[in-house]
Amino acid sequence: MTQINSAQAANALLLNQVIAAYSRTDNARWNVVIESLLRHLHGFVNEVELRPEEWWTAIDFLTRTGQACVGPRQEFILLSDALGLSSAVDNLNNASLAGATESAVTGPFYVPHSPHIENGGSIALAGEGETVLIRGRVLDTAGHPISAAELDIWHTSPNQLYAVQDKNQPEMNFRGKLRTRTDGSFAFHTIKPIAYPVPVDGPVGQLLNKGGRHPMRPAHIHFIVSAPGYQSVTTQLFTRGDEFIDSDAVFGVKDSLLIDYQRNTDRSLAVDWVLDHDFVLAGPSAG
Amino acid sequence: MTQINSAQAANALLLNQVIAAYSRTDNARWNVVIESLLRHLHGFVNEVELRPEEWWTAIDFLTRTGQACVGPRQEFILLSDALGLSSAVDNLNNASLAGATESAVTGPFYVPHSPHIENGGSIALAGEGETVLIRGRVLDTAGHPISAAELDIWHTSPNQLYAVQDKNQPEMNFRGKLRTRTDGSFAFHTIKPIAYPVPVDGPVGQLLNKGGRHPMRPAHIHFIVSAPGYQSVTTQLFTRGDEFIDSDAVFGVKDSLLIDYQRNTDRSLAVDWVLDHDFVLAGPSAG
Repeated sequence: MTQINSAQAANALLLNQVIAAYSRTDNARWNVVIESLLRHLHGFVNEVELRPEEWWTAIDFLTRTGQACVGPRQEFILLSDALGLSSAVDNLNNASLAGATESAVTGPFYVPHSPHIENGGSIALAGEGETVLIRGRVLDTAGHPISAAELDIWHTSPNQLYAVQDKNQPEMNFRGKLRTRTDGSFAFHTIKPIAYPVPVDGPVGQLLNKGGRHPMRPAHIHFIVSAPGYQSVTTQLFTRGDEFIDSDAVFGVKDSLLIDYQRNTDRSLAVDWVLDHDFVLAGPSAG
Repeated sequence: MTQINSAQAANALLLNQVIAAYSRTDNARWNVVIESLLRHLHGFVNEVELRPEEWWTAIDFLTRTGQACVGPRQEFILLSDALGLSSAVDNLNNASLAGATESAVTGPFYVPHSPHIENGGSIALAGEGETVLIRGRVLDTAGHPISAAELDIWHTSPNQLYAVQDKNQPEMNFRGKLRTRTDGSFAFHTIKPIAYPVPVDGPVGQLLNKGGRHPMRPAHIHFIVSAPGYQSVTTQLFTRGDEFIDSDAVFGVKDSLLIDYQRNTDRSLAVDWVLDHDFVLAGPSAG
């Protein structure tokens, strides 16, 4: 115990020295952030009395995570997602605005240059599955329609991979942008998404396995909804009742984002399912 | 404030959910370590209310740090060193053993396969500088000599680079292993080391710059001293009075590891300086 207490005392002095070295810049925000980061990193090391072999494991894990970021793959975003840190940052910066659609994490599979499609068009270029028509309106918090709002949409293919992960899919498969009509309405066709695993062939997969966690995300569709003069929202719509709805590998599910697909009963529509859903955007100073 | 408080409340629930997901394995140590890590990472994010652009900066920084680990370069060890975390782990796991030589961080430039040299030989294969004879004994804590103890030695070249960083040096320049004689004594020749900067052309260099820190390490020599039946020690000997002795970029300096080179006055020795220094190893159950 004498040794340990002596080590903890030495580490308390060390931490003060490290904080003093990094947190005396002219950048007040930097000083606050780096001091908190150093206190928490050293706090962790001291609290668990981190062992040399555990430190090596961490160095190796972080190194491999960086090296797994090849091409469009971003394993550090996936790590942040899988540790719930992305959702925490999302919560802090997208505080629920009264009446507006809640946000959810972006995830590692967003790419900005999706093709524009016409209202009523399809984002499914390849893949077999149950068809769905998704339609609704983009509204302000007073219920007024927002015309020419943009919806940027992406989801996985029925093979459980995003196009960006899968060379065998067309590059723009299950991705598209469209704009609301004058009455705020939009509509597009796609294949109803299914649950899928986050990539498990890298360090994050090993972390999930070590923690006894499955890698599955419940079925969902990503949206970024934006319009001039309004606060844009990055969000996801999750299939209520999905097997993994309470154990999302990346902790992205929020109750207000659960949606119910309806079996299509309209014979004039050649689809299996229909989803009617409105998005609500807050004004720039709302809240 | 309502928004922030609501976000903090949401994040408290989120953290509980994340901890529950990861810390219920059969591995008791894992459960303790991961819970502490999650509490501190989320604690940091919540305490500073981390902004999306800061999160992106962190993702990008960590990604580039992993990607900078090419060949023998290990930027994540350098990062751990530069944040004082390596010294904290060192302190926790090498608690000062009464009378034994104190430890110091290994650093990112150790490689295990240094060549064996004879006592009295030189580890300087190339490079111009002031010559030094380093000699002493390896002892146990009772002052008895330890024969056939191994010293694994490495330091920078006068051009401020380790051989492992520099294609223009012989691969084994300023690196060598030797064994103590029956009386515990050892001796070797080298060039007196000078202060040098840690690599500044990668993410850690940018971090130091952002924090207003210089990248210099005070002049030092690395040793791993080991002998069967004793606790080995990884340590460094630092030149007292060095300009950077109180601001080591990696927080490795300890008072007991400061040494004084003496101007050589013995005409029978063709060297500029002499360092007499003993190492003391603790027994396996000492402390």
